[in-house]
Amino acid sequence: MDAHQPDDSTKDTEPKAFPPVIDRRRFLAGSASLIALGATSIMLGKEAGAAKSDPMSIPGAPARAYGDRSPFEGTARSAASSYSLTPLEDLHGIVTPSSLHFERHHNGVPTIDSSRHRLMIHGLVARPLMWTVAELQRFPAVSRLAFIECSGNTRQGWQDADDLTLHDLYGLTSTSEWTGVKLSTLLEAAGPRPEAAWMLAEGSDAAGLARSVPLTGDVLSEALVCYAQNGEALRPEQGYPLRLLLPGLEGNINVKWLRRLKLGAAPFMTRWETAKYTDLMPDGRAYQFSLVMEAKSVITNPCGRRPVQPGFQQIRGLAWSGKGRITRVEVSVDAGRTWQRAHLQEPVFSKCHTRFELPWRWKGEEAILQSRCMDETGYMQPSRAALTKVRGSHSSYHYNGIQSWKIERDGRVHNVDG
Amino acid sequence: MDAHQPDDSTKDTEPKAFPPVIDRRRFLAGSASLIALGATSIMLGKEAGAAKSDPMSIPGAPARAYGDRSPFEGTARSAASSYSLTPLEDLHGIVTPSSLHFERHHNGVPTIDSSRHRLMIHGLVARPLMWTVAELQRFPAVSRLAFIECSGNTRQGWQDADDLTLHDLYGLTSTSEWTGVKLSTLLEAAGPRPEAAWMLAEGSDAAGLARSVPLTGDVLSEALVCYAQNGEALRPEQGYPLRLLLPGLEGNINVKWLRRLKLGAAPFMTRWETAKYTDLMPDGRAYQFSLVMEAKSVITNPCGRRPVQPGFQQIRGLAWSGKGRITRVEVSVDAGRTWQRAHLQEPVFSKCHTRFELPWRWKGEEAILQSRCMDETGYMQPSRAALTKVRGSHSSYHYNGIQSWKIERDGRVHNVDG
Repeated sequence: MDAHQPDDSTKDTEPKAFPPVIDRRRFLAGSASLIALGATSIMLGKEAGAAKSDPMSIPGAPARAYGDRSPFEGTARSAASSYSLTPLEDLHGIVTPSSLHFERHHNGVPTIDSSRHRLMIHGLVARPLMWTVAELQRFPAVSRLAFIECSGNTRQGWQDADDLTLHDLYGLTSTSEWTGVKLSTLLEAAGPRPEAAWMLAEGSDAAGLARSVPLTGDVLSEALVCYAQNGEALRPEQGYPLRLLLPGLEGNINVKWLRRLKLGAAPFMTRWETAKYTDLMPDGRAYQFSLVMEAKSVITNPCGRRPVQPGFQQIRGLAWSGKGRITRVEVSVDAGRTWQRAHLQEPVFSKCHTRFELPWRWKGEEAILQSRCMDETGYMQPSRAALTKVRGSHSSYHYNGIQSWKIERDGRVHNVDG
Repeated sequence: MDAHQPDDSTKDTEPKAFPPVIDRRRFLAGSASLIALGATSIMLGKEAGAAKSDPMSIPGAPARAYGDRSPFEGTARSAASSYSLTPLEDLHGIVTPSSLHFERHHNGVPTIDSSRHRLMIHGLVARPLMWTVAELQRFPAVSRLAFIECSGNTRQGWQDADDLTLHDLYGLTSTSEWTGVKLSTLLEAAGPRPEAAWMLAEGSDAAGLARSVPLTGDVLSEALVCYAQNGEALRPEQGYPLRLLLPGLEGNINVKWLRRLKLGAAPFMTRWETAKYTDLMPDGRAYQFSLVMEAKSVITNPCGRRPVQPGFQQIRGLAWSGKGRITRVEVSVDAGRTWQRAHLQEPVFSKCHTRFELPWRWKGEEAILQSRCMDETGYMQPSRAALTKVRGSHSSYHYNGIQSWKIERDGRVHNVDG
């Protein structure tokens, strides 16, 4: 096929021989060197036929009011009825596009008119108060980048490995820039009573999701009531028009569609912290309020069910910790026998996804790839064996063991127990 | 109207008396205190009728593969045929949503199939090379947040003030997280000859936009060939599938739809650096290659054509510098007679939009609001008078004088000369 002829087969993923974006007039003189560069055949079509495939030959599209991505891009969340998974395999940098931020809800995503929405604060306070979204936006604003991770992310790690993809295992974590008002500012306005030590945060979804938040120093210094995500209003799946942001704590407590904050002296023992989101230990007891997401990392390239070719591989991955900055990531290509320090890619922010990279040449042998990270507290991500030795395998939450990707001789990549 | 009755008038901007998101069963006991909080009348409708207006009474929407914003949000770029303006009035934090990033093009936005796109490097190099986008993505990746600003942003500042909005004046600047491969990595692969001091960067749009880039140390240490913006592939308006990123330099030289890099010993003198994008001085001479965007700031609230009410105002604004970090912003509410130091809102990154805030109480008097910023080099943004004294008023580019918003007694806000 002549690449310069009109072409409707825009879904082809194999590039045509000579890239039609290179213009004949400019490059004719250089065609000999182009051949030397590996273009196996050069077919220069008639100018007249170039219209549809040569973007330089026709005026482009006009400006538009709200942009969208290229029709050639189809990266998507893997969506079930009550959750969708961020396709970490296909993303770049540390900001997750809002359209691809993971979601998890317990009775659907509510449709809320922000002009009718209110946030109330009551309970053990001197002055119960209620604000509109516009009123909250008049307070001093704080922005920060932060990851949010569902505590059920990588829950499959507690069980024997199945042949899963990266997003199946790790897709319940994303990073955004969040903007809102400090929780402490709102508490000050309401005047907490001295005995107030916990706060119920309730969403206005049809599940009425509500969680008890301990009013520790860390929470008070960092918690935000957010109205914006990546520069614009929160997306419906992330809590439009208001959500609580508790950087570093499990996703579920970052209550979305936030309508009410009630201060109390003790936790409120909602079903979301009794029947669910607790950690069942080997002896049958369960940890409650184990809220901090501990340090975790995963190699995103290569990764499960994405075959690789022998030769140079840029091993890439993500690391994050609910306790602060990532300070070190190590990578093993021999199932943990030896480790090499990976390069941390800027920017490295506290409680944010952090990228790491390590160049590697795969010679076609069987290999098991692993990563482990350390955060600024000195905590090192544990092996799966070390983690399950202490915590057993009955939990569904807070798995942060080392992930193992096995590369077969034929290039297939599997999730294995490691 | 009973707020709990089915309600199709979702466009109402005035909140109904009692917010329907507050659930009767939970709040009946507290209704006395709600009245005390200013809810002038409480109308509790029949449960049966609450379906459409009470999001807690009906299951919400299922998860979806690629998200979109709430139907209650309509923030848009102001779009003409060849550009669109970021609505800075309505954004939060420092990341500009990709859908609202400004655009400027000279013959439309091309539609490019990334699988067919190539980047070529040639000219004064040992090895001319050509890469697919996928090949570029195998190189070590670098991400950074950076603003891009069209050198024609605030061009109206060179003329007498007209009654313009914030986005009319300042909407040609936006900040994103960009990811790509370092230009220096690609140059190394091609082997620049010792005499190579400039580089032609050419886009594959129908304007064939091409600019000469000086290969200075700063450029070589920071320039990226980008394929991603805010986590996903570049948007078409920002250069899909490849653009050059030269942090701190005028927007036009951050060539979009990048197809070719040619090394040379001298600038290539394209029409985009001879007929356009030069600075005409009072004596009739013109500066060429005045590429750095110098420090600039603007108050985004209050701002032009957005009336204000007497009382507390959180003065907010943005500051940025092509030379590095913003270190200081000062605000005047009396036309520059006195200045107060504004609070810089985290995060403060080099060559990125930086937010500032200052609380203020407007008593209804005439007032002229101004901001000025300093960057890490010690450079202070000049007054309009100081700038035009040196540079005259014939230029169309690189205006960075202090902006003045006049507040009238009736609350209207105008752009004035200051």
